[in-house]
Amino acid sequence: MGSSSRKVPASTARRLSVYLRTLETFEAEGVSTVSSGTMASRGGTTAAQVRKDLSHFGSFGKRGTGYPVAELARELREIIGLDRSWRVALVGAGRIGSALFEYGDFRDRGFRIVALLDSDPSKVGREWGGIPVLPVDHLEEVLHSHSVEIVVLAVPAGVVQDLLDRVVRAGVRAVLNFAPTQLKVPPGVTVNDVNLAMELEALSFALIAQQGDDE
Amino acid sequence: MGSSSRKVPASTARRLSVYLRTLETFEAEGVSTVSSGTMASRGGTTAAQVRKDLSHFGSFGKRGTGYPVAELARELREIIGLDRSWRVALVGAGRIGSALFEYGDFRDRGFRIVALLDSDPSKVGREWGGIPVLPVDHLEEVLHSHSVEIVVLAVPAGVVQDLLDRVVRAGVRAVLNFAPTQLKVPPGVTVNDVNLAMELEALSFALIAQQGDDE
Repeated sequence: MGSSSRKVPASTARRLSVYLRTLETFEAEGVSTVSSGTMASRGGTTAAQVRKDLSHFGSFGKRGTGYPVAELARELREIIGLDRSWRVALVGAGRIGSALFEYGDFRDRGFRIVALLDSDPSKVGREWGGIPVLPVDHLEEVLHSHSVEIVVLAVPAGVVQDLLDRVVRAGVRAVLNFAPTQLKVPPGVTVNDVNLAMELEALSFALIAQQGDDE
Repeated sequence: MGSSSRKVPASTARRLSVYLRTLETFEAEGVSTVSSGTMASRGGTTAAQVRKDLSHFGSFGKRGTGYPVAELARELREIIGLDRSWRVALVGAGRIGSALFEYGDFRDRGFRIVALLDSDPSKVGREWGGIPVLPVDHLEEVLHSHSVEIVVLAVPAGVVQDLLDRVVRAGVRAVLNFAPTQLKVPPGVTVNDVNLAMELEALSFALIAQQGDDE
């Protein structure tokens, strides 16, 4: 097992997910081929970017005829890793954890929540959709016994670095973090952050930029 | 008022937010200057990317001495639009809406939730932290009367395009969308999506890429 990881920009991964959704929409509409320009306009990017993103993963489509919708969708599902299922643990059975758990969308994509953990004794032992909330003290055992591949951390900022360190030591290499904290992440591990303040900041930044244009 | 908007990549906006957090950490630690290399390593990017991102907004730092921490933090807050407050409406008082509302982080950044709306008569009239849940039928009036600048849509996929269209017609140009739907967005409006399935897909993609490296 190598400790290095190919540097995959999160922005590329997000665009691939958007391309897949665009292709699936066309597939449902019975469209058989699509141009990079159409892919781009649906995904808020440029045709050149679409061609560049897809060229990383092999040769798709023929010049002049566009991309074959069903074939490219199938290839993208494979590239993104959606041709299989993933075992996910959710740490933090609070409000955000509960909202995530209820959010069904990711289940259709093969992400299965197989374990729930919390530090609050009043939550431990409850069941969410038949899955018991386990004590976070047993994190390492639970991750091993459930063969967890992806961990979602929906915990307060003050405890998240310690939990990440434990998750990484237990051998998990992909983490989605909801705490508003800049985590120290060892090589070979991918941590993506969902940070509401930063999402709102991206919007205020866009509004400021628009005001600049309007003046 | 122009209808065009300067194209601000969401990825740049996110990096600026990360740089700001790094600078604030250093500021709190009493560090007065920082190199682009240090900024980069904390933000998971390269020194060249840091210099490129910051060069868009003027000339910061002197060659060889690094960036002045406090001054650059102040400039970034202005660039991102955090030297003022923003009036935010939350549409959807369900589980995700409730988790967002409880999430205090963004309030410290000047994002004030001034209005809550929902379509469910059993929720309308309740108060969240002193803010009444109003009927979404009155969306346009509420956005006007509360001078809302940013709308957060935490509503089901089936209704989100219609709500976005109404929000845009009411003159709001910045929206954060939690529904797993590719929205049609008119020019001059910024819609950022938080999509849990896509966040998890970015992780499965990274894991697949790592496996490729390890073989």
